[in-house]
Order: sequence, then C-alpha cells, then structure tokens
Amino acid sequence: MDGIERITGATKLACLIGSPVAHSASPRMHNASFARMGVDAVYLAFDIAPEELETVAAALVRMKAIGYNVTMPHKAAILPLLDEVSDAARLMGAVNTVKIEPDGRTSGHNTDGAGFMRNLAEHGCEVEGKRVVVLGAGGAGSALFVQAALDGAACVDVFNSRSPRFAPAEERAAKTSALSGCPVAVHDLADRALLRERCLQADVIANATSVGMSPHEDESLLDEGFIPRGAWVADAVYNPRETKLLRTAKALGNPTVPGIGMILWQGAIAEEIWLGRSMDVDYIRNLLF
Amino acid sequence: MDGIERITGATKLACLIGSPVAHSASPRMHNASFARMGVDAVYLAFDIAPEELETVAAALVRMKAIGYNVTMPHKAAILPLLDEVSDAARLMGAVNTVKIEPDGRTSGHNTDGAGFMRNLAEHGCEVEGKRVVVLGAGGAGSALFVQAALDGAACVDVFNSRSPRFAPAEERAAKTSALSGCPVAVHDLADRALLRERCLQADVIANATSVGMSPHEDESLLDEGFIPRGAWVADAVYNPRETKLLRTAKALGNPTVPGIGMILWQGAIAEEIWLGRSMDVDYIRNLLF
Repeated sequence: MDGIERITGATKLACLIGSPVAHSASPRMHNASFARMGVDAVYLAFDIAPEELETVAAALVRMKAIGYNVTMPHKAAILPLLDEVSDAARLMGAVNTVKIEPDGRTSGHNTDGAGFMRNLAEHGCEVEGKRVVVLGAGGAGSALFVQAALDGAACVDVFNSRSPRFAPAEERAAKTSALSGCPVAVHDLADRALLRERCLQADVIANATSVGMSPHEDESLLDEGFIPRGAWVADAVYNPRETKLLRTAKALGNPTVPGIGMILWQGAIAEEIWLGRSMDVDYIRNLLF
Repeated sequence: MDGIERITGATKLACLIGSPVAHSASPRMHNASFARMGVDAVYLAFDIAPEELETVAAALVRMKAIGYNVTMPHKAAILPLLDEVSDAARLMGAVNTVKIEPDGRTSGHNTDGAGFMRNLAEHGCEVEGKRVVVLGAGGAGSALFVQAALDGAACVDVFNSRSPRFAPAEERAAKTSALSGCPVAVHDLADRALLRERCLQADVIANATSVGMSPHEDESLLDEGFIPRGAWVADAVYNPRETKLLRTAKALGNPTVPGIGMILWQGAIAEEIWLGRSMDVDYIRNLLF
C-alpha cells in the first residue's frame, strides 16, 4: 500500500516545530520524498509555543524521531538544548534542522545558507572565490553571509539599515571572518554610494531582505545602475517567483537565480543530514514546485 | 492525494506508546480508518521506556495530538499523569486510551472491557442481567469483570490462581461491586468444583487467561462438563482465531465469540473517544481482519 495505510508500528517520525506551521510546505515535500525513496517515516508539523520547546525537544529524542526542522520562533532557542551545533548554525545563531542519532544524541544544523548556495550552484554559480554582496543581515541575510564565507567567497559585503540588528550582525561578521578567513563587513544600507560601489565590484548580488515580496512586488533595493555586467543576481524572496530585482537584472542580460529553489534545496539538505542520502530533487520539483 | 502526500502542516498526530510496539496492528487499523473517514490525522507508534513516559505524555499535549493509546508497560503508570480518569479505567487500574482536548486537558479511558462487550453484543449477547464467569484476573480479566459489572451484569464470578495478583483482584472486585451494585467475587481457580458450579449457572463464560494461546493451542481450562447448554462462550485470546475452548463449546452447540473482534472494537471505541464518531467497522474488518 502506498497510502498512510503503509504506516506500521516501525514507521519513524520526522517533523517541523514552530508557530505557525499549518501552511508549511515541508510536510508535503518530505512525505512525497519519503514515499518516493521508500523511507519508512512520516513528516508532521507541530505548532509549539516557546515555553513548550524544551519538553517537545526532549520528547522527540525519546520518541526516536529521525530528526526535525525548526522554524520561528525557536531557531535560536533550540541551540542550548542540543548536544552539538555545526559551525554554520553557531555563527548564524540559528538552527533549522536537528538530527537525532540512534543513541539519542542531537546535532543542530542550518540549511538556509547551504540551500541558497546549492540553488546558486544548480544555476551554474559556485560561490567559491566570488565577491559577494548580501542585502539584509536578518535571519536569511546572516545565513547567506555566513555560508558564503564558509564556502570560500573572496569577500562578503553585507548591507543592513542601522536597526537594532546592525551591531549583532557586525559581531557575527567578525566571528565569521575569524573562522573562515574571508573578509566579511557590514555596512549601512542607507549609504547608497558605498552600496553602488560594492555592487559594481561584485560577482554575486543576493537579496535577503523582504523588499520585493508580495504584496510589495514593485519594490527593489537596486536599480539598473547597481548591477554590473555579468554578475549573478539572486533573491531569497520566492513570492513572487520573479521579484522586481530579478526582472531588472534579467532585462540587463544578467544571470538570475530565483528564491524558490532555495526551499527545495533546504529540504534536500535536511534529508541528507537525517538519512545520509540525496533527495530526488527533480521529482519533488515537478510534483510540488 | 490519498497517500502520505496528503499530510499537511495541519495534519494531527495520534499514536500508541508502549514497548515493544513495532508489531502493533493499531497503526494500520487507525490510519486505514482515518483515510476512510477523511480524518486529517496520522497514527504512529513510539517505543517508550518507563522513565521517558512523563516527558512524552507532556509533549503529546503540547504537540496537540488528538489522543493516544497506551500499552505495556505504561497502562498503570499513565494514570497519575492525566487530568481525569474514567470509572472503568480507575477500577481496572489501567488506561489504554487517552483523549487530549483542544485546551490540553487529558482524560484516560480503558477500552479493553468495552471492546470485549461490544464484540459480545455484535454476536448477539448483551451482558446486562447476565450471570458472568471470567477466567483470569490479570489485565484482560480485570478489564472484563469491571466492565461486565459496570454494564449491569447480574453477577460476576472471577477465577484466578492464588498468585500475587489474587489479593489485588479481590480488592478491585470489592470496589467494583461497591460502585456498580453488581456482586463480583474472586475465587481460586484451583477449586474445580466451585468453578464447575459457577460455570454451569452462567449465561456468559469468558476466558481472559492466556490458556489456549498459540503455541499452546491444545489447552483449555474448561472441558465439556463445565459448559451449560445455551451459555455464551467467549475468548479474549485471538491467536488462534478459534481456541480449544471455543471449539469445545461450538461442538456442544453453544454460541461462541472469538477474541479477534475485541481488537477491532477496542479501536472503534478509541476513535469514538477521540473523534466523537463511529469507525466504519465493516470496512476495517474486511481490510485488515
């Protein structure tokens, strides 16, 4: 039987914990992948309040789940509850994927940055040796600049407004530079001259702000004058599929990378972490994306 | 989609907790029933050690599970962890079904006895007003004699060997009598004369010992001389489907009730508790039993 009737007493649990989670695409993606690959597991989503996180995280180990994803508001709070945390996740200050070993040991990972880079690579752009500009230093921006540095970028310039997250981003950038050897600097997004200068020197420009996201589809942080010939322009925003930034870059003849593939690749990397094998990415893309 | 791909972020969890659980029939039964009835839930089984019970029980509330079944070794240990416990479960000293309300309150139930009685009723025998003999005062036997008394049996005579469970069974019988008004007495199974006397006066004779269970299929506590004309003879043993006791009774022309239906009806009653609606028992029986 292919349906849920195939579930037996030996079927394992994987899940997403966060709040809200009801509209997450992850259950459909992972259940389709598990069915495709013959993995005897089911992926559910649990809406968990912050004060419930510790009990649920402990219970998932005792329930011998294979692992779980973590989304807002638990990505930072989960760190001290895990036995190990990857360099990338520690630098990002956020875990979105937890693996539970058969002996109950837990390790935390962050697939946001890696999913972005894998999506970039699938489009033909390896970040190693590249000069990278990242717009935004929030959760997505931090994931991107940390991963770009760890993956061997030549340098990373991060732009963010002078919000309360600016100083923490500078600290994170300094730690990332120290660990990776890649220069990472955080600049004021309001400094348009510097932004233009760094963009025009960049090989990869990545938007990790919410600018351009539906319903503000006619907004973009960069106009034509900021995009150098031949640079890769990527967006973490996936709704709309093609943001104004990507339309602008495409019109200039630049190669562009839409954000939707990042979601797919995050899922694929999570399954690599849990199961030690690849997802059938093309099958899942055709089915769900 | 009918498969596990139908699972979304809104799909609820139901489960079995116990140890071992890998070979439980419950996941197949409830998942088939959920699919049949369009219930957006998945039923899994978790192998949980005793020292993990409290954490997992607390987490299942926080994960907003609709409810769960409890099997060995947790049926007694779960009682103090619940907000409410039904009269039947409290008298039996065992909970096998927990309902979790939307507000997180938990109630414990025991469907062992009710499942047995519902199976009996489906075969045409209502226990109300009947004189009942129960062989065995363990978990199954206690569930049977408590439920028979609560359901209005005229009297219940329970037979068990003088093992360490004899005195607790006497205490349980006394409490059951007090609550139900039905006389319940526990006797020594070694007193064959008394056993024969009570059996010959009975309307219903129910075996709740493991005698006759595979691989000891040629054993029975009662021979032809113990079975009065017309009495219902039922067995909680379901492997083999027809025990030696049932074969003996059937050869005498007595109506018999095999144990397998108890499993089906337990599941049906659990779904009534969780979901407030009936299971399609015939569909599940044809599919799995």
